[in-house]
Amino acid sequence: MTLDDARSLDRDDPFAEAARLFDLPDGMIYLDGNSLGPPPKPARQALDHAISEEWGQDLIASWNSADWMGLPLRTGARIARLIGAPENSVIACDSVSVNLFKLAAGLVMQGRKGVAVERGDFPTDGYIMEGLSALSGTPFTYIEPGAGVAGLPDGVEVLVRSAVHYKTAAIVDIAAEERQADRLGKAIIWDLSHAAGVIDLKLERDGAKYAAGCGYKYLNGGPGAPAFIYCRPDMAEGFSQPLSGWMGHVTPFAFQDGYKPAGGVSRFAAGTPSVLAMTALYGALSVFDGVDMGVAEAKARALGDTFLEAVSPLGLATISAPSAQRGGHVSLVHEDGYAIVQALIAEGVIGDFRAPDIMRFGFAPLYLTHEQVFRAGQRLLEIVRSGLYRDPRFAERRAVT
Amino acid sequence: MTLDDARSLDRDDPFAEAARLFDLPDGMIYLDGNSLGPPPKPARQALDHAISEEWGQDLIASWNSADWMGLPLRTGARIARLIGAPENSVIACDSVSVNLFKLAAGLVMQGRKGVAVERGDFPTDGYIMEGLSALSGTPFTYIEPGAGVAGLPDGVEVLVRSAVHYKTAAIVDIAAEERQADRLGKAIIWDLSHAAGVIDLKLERDGAKYAAGCGYKYLNGGPGAPAFIYCRPDMAEGFSQPLSGWMGHVTPFAFQDGYKPAGGVSRFAAGTPSVLAMTALYGALSVFDGVDMGVAEAKARALGDTFLEAVSPLGLATISAPSAQRGGHVSLVHEDGYAIVQALIAEGVIGDFRAPDIMRFGFAPLYLTHEQVFRAGQRLLEIVRSGLYRDPRFAERRAVT
Repeated sequence: MTLDDARSLDRDDPFAEAARLFDLPDGMIYLDGNSLGPPPKPARQALDHAISEEWGQDLIASWNSADWMGLPLRTGARIARLIGAPENSVIACDSVSVNLFKLAAGLVMQGRKGVAVERGDFPTDGYIMEGLSALSGTPFTYIEPGAGVAGLPDGVEVLVRSAVHYKTAAIVDIAAEERQADRLGKAIIWDLSHAAGVIDLKLERDGAKYAAGCGYKYLNGGPGAPAFIYCRPDMAEGFSQPLSGWMGHVTPFAFQDGYKPAGGVSRFAAGTPSVLAMTALYGALSVFDGVDMGVAEAKARALGDTFLEAVSPLGLATISAPSAQRGGHVSLVHEDGYAIVQALIAEGVIGDFRAPDIMRFGFAPLYLTHEQVFRAGQRLLEIVRSGLYRDPRFAERRAVT
Repeated sequence: MTLDDARSLDRDDPFAEAARLFDLPDGMIYLDGNSLGPPPKPARQALDHAISEEWGQDLIASWNSADWMGLPLRTGARIARLIGAPENSVIACDSVSVNLFKLAAGLVMQGRKGVAVERGDFPTDGYIMEGLSALSGTPFTYIEPGAGVAGLPDGVEVLVRSAVHYKTAAIVDIAAEERQADRLGKAIIWDLSHAAGVIDLKLERDGAKYAAGCGYKYLNGGPGAPAFIYCRPDMAEGFSQPLSGWMGHVTPFAFQDGYKPAGGVSRFAAGTPSVLAMTALYGALSVFDGVDMGVAEAKARALGDTFLEAVSPLGLATISAPSAQRGGHVSLVHEDGYAIVQALIAEGVIGDFRAPDIMRFGFAPLYLTHEQVFRAGQRLLEIVRSGLYRDPRFAERRAVT
């Protein structure tokens, strides 16, 4: 593959318009949208308006005049389209960690016994289920990576599982897992953090019942953006969750003792949401207007293929799933991966490192071109071949990588 | 009292400098800082910087370069000074609802039995304890208003209580309650939502062990700003809480299976916090630099007295505590309270209404003058005397009031 080949792949880029909505520093090739998306211009504009006009001019009245009350569902509606979820089945709220707790705790309160997470899945999923177990007494167990719902031991009925694995990017066949779960009488809570906004999720079609996901990766909502919860409407009615804060009450401003949940997915709201953070996310999501997620997923995969082809002369090991089963990022293995990633960053190619030896590169389809990705691959090639990464300045570990 | 009397009280306003740091619409008299504080200029500036420079230029690297990792504790440190808490005992995170859950659930996990809330206390406190009860099996009960820790029935060991009541503004004697709790072997979790930033709280001196509070009322952190948790350092070591997300892990970026809590109050972090929302709060808190909270509390009380004196000719009933035991707001009773508040808002005096008949007016000391408060009282006087509030346009109820 040559630079010209890469450029030719960009000729009919379906997202050339969308790319102009992102603010990225000149010259930077940002391959970390799987960890933190860059600022979309509409996020900034929405936030400016929320600060100057809503908070600044109308203040408390904005709960009505700017419909801050409806913001979590409005934001959820924009996410619903991207994940193939029906109307009114998604609400933006809290963090992924807190939302996974709500869903799993609610299932435990329904009488479901035992919660499990695959070993090596995103750590917070397991940490939160440990916490739920300690509080509720329901057993918690890790199961083997990739075992899925069929790997749940007797007496464990709830699995929390990433739809796209944060290291391998392996896409799980949600429909097959849900069919299996139905046969076995088990429940799955999907963690969509590395899937939403890059994979053509079809939650409704595939029979998914419960999911939570992240607002700051491919959804570009800003660092630590609000997360979301999906709950299939027939499951939401009657669902109780223990973080039953006033914003999930049917009439929060009646200030009554005694909790009565709001209808449907609204009951997953807990405390007052950050209007500023959610406004940024809501604005950010507008860059997906008109985006066909099938086309987006295909472009992300093609970008990943371009990158892998550019670096193929190195013969690096990979833990990534094969192209057809791979989400929006690829993971290469090198014992000096940390230093190599630092050397790349110094040259304006931003990837990340995951211990002990994983170099991770994300291919968000809305703002990246094949040319950029090919150039990034060439840089990696040069850095490894030249041994540049052995420079001592790339060895110093930082807190977050 | 005359307008001149009010003006003379403003002559040596200790917070005239601080007032200039707030952006408030021209002509508005904002008496709702007890519900949503107005935008401080430093909040806006900090947020602009976070978007343009941190998120916009350094992107993912800002976790290190802008120390986003340390933001929750930096923000907590600014709050600690305002509530009389020792260093490293406060962290900004999540919402009040979620934080009350963490604290109470952690106590239940220590073997404490039974949780209670006073009837008529801020509703979310009871709602959340109901949820905890449903999940954990620990009993939940409402106790009588004002009963305090001595009113806990046998077998109920944890009380969640507002330090300042959201309706009556009654200040609880924290030291006396904590002494009583120690004698009885009970635990109190303080809800500081209507106290932090307006009352001269001395948590350490008064023996408080656990508290949560709100970032968007007197702390002016923006709508739905992150909340905070206080945990006395000797209680924090060894404390387990079930929302054990990765940001509370001792080494979040080691990505290890198996939760190990971070030291001290850091273990109360759950998922990734909103950096944008927390940056606004952190910036907002700088308006308290150099503010003596004893002086702030005294001014808030004096402003409330000025208001009550201005409206005294009406002879309205009040459910507010007497001046010396009153927090930052006053609550007047009128059967047409809703319409009266709407009529006031139409004239630029912003208060709020709490069902069924409470008109609530907050007296944030940093940006209000006695002259403003006196004028607001005069407007209320005119509106009630003239019957202006009977105009049909003031009758229509809105979702949030």
